[in-house]
Amino acid sequence: MYGLGAAPSVIREIANYGWQRAAEVGAENVYNFSIGDPSVPAPDAVKQAMLKIINEQEPTGYHAYTPGPGAPDTRAAVAENLNKRFGVDFTADDIYMTCGAAASLNITLRALISDPKDEIIVVIPYFPEYKVFIESQGGVPVFVQPDEHMNLDVENLKAAITPNTKAVIINSPNNPAGVIYPEALIEEACKVLEEKGKEYGHPIYVIADEPYRELVFTEEKVSFIPAVYANTVVCYSWSKSLSLPGERIGYIAVPKGFDGYDEFIPAINGAGRALGYVNAPSLMQQVVRDCIDVMPDIKPYAECREALYDSLVNMGYTVAKPSGAFYMYIKSPDGNSEDFAERLKKYDVLVVPGTGFGTPEYVRLAYCCPVERVKKALPAFEKVMAEYK
Amino acid sequence: MYGLGAAPSVIREIANYGWQRAAEVGAENVYNFSIGDPSVPAPDAVKQAMLKIINEQEPTGYHAYTPGPGAPDTRAAVAENLNKRFGVDFTADDIYMTCGAAASLNITLRALISDPKDEIIVVIPYFPEYKVFIESQGGVPVFVQPDEHMNLDVENLKAAITPNTKAVIINSPNNPAGVIYPEALIEEACKVLEEKGKEYGHPIYVIADEPYRELVFTEEKVSFIPAVYANTVVCYSWSKSLSLPGERIGYIAVPKGFDGYDEFIPAINGAGRALGYVNAPSLMQQVVRDCIDVMPDIKPYAECREALYDSLVNMGYTVAKPSGAFYMYIKSPDGNSEDFAERLKKYDVLVVPGTGFGTPEYVRLAYCCPVERVKKALPAFEKVMAEYK
Repeated sequence: MYGLGAAPSVIREIANYGWQRAAEVGAENVYNFSIGDPSVPAPDAVKQAMLKIINEQEPTGYHAYTPGPGAPDTRAAVAENLNKRFGVDFTADDIYMTCGAAASLNITLRALISDPKDEIIVVIPYFPEYKVFIESQGGVPVFVQPDEHMNLDVENLKAAITPNTKAVIINSPNNPAGVIYPEALIEEACKVLEEKGKEYGHPIYVIADEPYRELVFTEEKVSFIPAVYANTVVCYSWSKSLSLPGERIGYIAVPKGFDGYDEFIPAINGAGRALGYVNAPSLMQQVVRDCIDVMPDIKPYAECREALYDSLVNMGYTVAKPSGAFYMYIKSPDGNSEDFAERLKKYDVLVVPGTGFGTPEYVRLAYCCPVERVKKALPAFEKVMAEYK
Repeated sequence: MYGLGAAPSVIREIANYGWQRAAEVGAENVYNFSIGDPSVPAPDAVKQAMLKIINEQEPTGYHAYTPGPGAPDTRAAVAENLNKRFGVDFTADDIYMTCGAAASLNITLRALISDPKDEIIVVIPYFPEYKVFIESQGGVPVFVQPDEHMNLDVENLKAAITPNTKAVIINSPNNPAGVIYPEALIEEACKVLEEKGKEYGHPIYVIADEPYRELVFTEEKVSFIPAVYANTVVCYSWSKSLSLPGERIGYIAVPKGFDGYDEFIPAINGAGRALGYVNAPSLMQQVVRDCIDVMPDIKPYAECREALYDSLVNMGYTVAKPSGAFYMYIKSPDGNSEDFAERLKKYDVLVVPGTGFGTPEYVRLAYCCPVERVKKALPAFEKVMAEYK
């Protein structure tokens, strides 16, 4: 635990440098693209929902313990919303409210992993905390290389599956690459999991980590995996979609066709208890219930994305297709992302080297920021490209 | 995890029965004393603080991620409040904000326990989840019998310490017994820990679980243990003091004199990360900062306590001295608490048998309820005592 606490998260380290640097030279002169903190405010509906609850209800109601899996009406609202949008048939029983996506993932992993040999496959590039979570819940992370477009590579996935494979984490729209895995790829991957599961005599689950589900800038469809593969646990969070990252509110959804459903639902309850999660924050459970159909305003992110993408490509950069989330994944001209990040840093442009995400030749640029910051940072990219040429 | 999720918590089971029964015969006819859910509403200052934050600040501020250990100003406010009240010298660095007491305890246990042989001593009677938390964080719970007044027994504590003892959980005011461990006893116990620590060549820590610190009905002083024994981790929650149980907000406090402080603070950060706690809920962090000096209105609990205690004693019941918290611990006239609870249940009076708390001869009555409920339940106790006589 000491190592985990003492080792700086690279993202946080760069963000902290940026905040210090802003104090020295002025915030307007630092182009801090390090951290995925939503710049779009929570929709006004969130504020109105909070005020209505606070002004019209008794505090002994909205501040009270809820049942461990969450308030029944919130769970029902989540189920209904998923059914309406994705043609599935969840009920409140299938939904377990959590303190955000990190809680969703840890509870899911704790409930799934039963043997220290259990392997959880992670598709590169990946959110670095996956490794921490898998290891701390007693499993072994196994990393799978993507294709050259930073997409899921089904052949690589297939090759990584062993008799010990318990689950695969799928994160699309992807952090850090911003890509959306094409539907056909997801379906092909699920077919492989189905076959391998039969071959090894036990299901291979998908953990669909979906905090960026609502942040999509193209016509591409984000697969809702339980609709095509029942052995899927959905881990969701409103951190990005409703811009509530500090409030820690999310859920786990398990379809009734999930192999071992009757044991897995109690196991989720047990894992929540074992990790000290009593219930998801109670006021926020009511807020997300009341805002269940509210969609984020992604226009500000779309503007940043447009301002960046074409310019970077025109300058000669290779960039993963930024279809969703609010990250741009940019290849270092010479393949060394640490050096690339250092060169940009000289111009006070702060990005995160891809080493921790599993692709040391890329950097991640988080464009959840005012569009002016993006536009003013472009000349630095131009100059750095000139240095390489 | 399945076992943990499938096994019903006795308290929840009885509470659920009470709610069902209320639907059948009317809530006014069921005397549900099973669960420790505060009946006193959160002070109005909490509502005003929420409204002020929501109406005056930008949502990108109050809903944002905070640093993992919490917002600096909230941590500073907690430190200052402790210093003012208890003559200690905490700084913001010593405070780690959490998602409630269960999170505080699990993070602390995870940071402390480093070997599967590590033992954590629990003083009987105890909150049943301690066992779950210690085991799920990889340690061995060791239970210590109290004296006949349900107080800490220092000789029993001393006898339970082994070279593997890592820490002792002290919970005063106590759930379920309502007793406050006398200052002299606490000091004596800390002296024993000091000596045994020297004998075994490693510190024996205290984990002071203090959710009921502010709920005191007598002139007895609740020891603030770090002031007398620096090897103490305080685990606090505002669930009971500000009646915010559903919001999940609390803290961990570690004094600078704590043996291994420089490693333990990062270990707490690491444990929080490993359990999936990103930060304590952000809006509530601001609320508790703004309400740091607000004390609960405990008059309604005091009324219930008075209405119950003398009457029960006059009827011939043996009751642990109800000095704090909002629990009355009542001995079964024949020493069988399961049977005692069953007899009361026939009159729709619902209490929790003490088996899960480690004292099978007592029942716990949670008097966080309207005083009328308490008064109307007294005749049932009279009738049950007559049955025994």
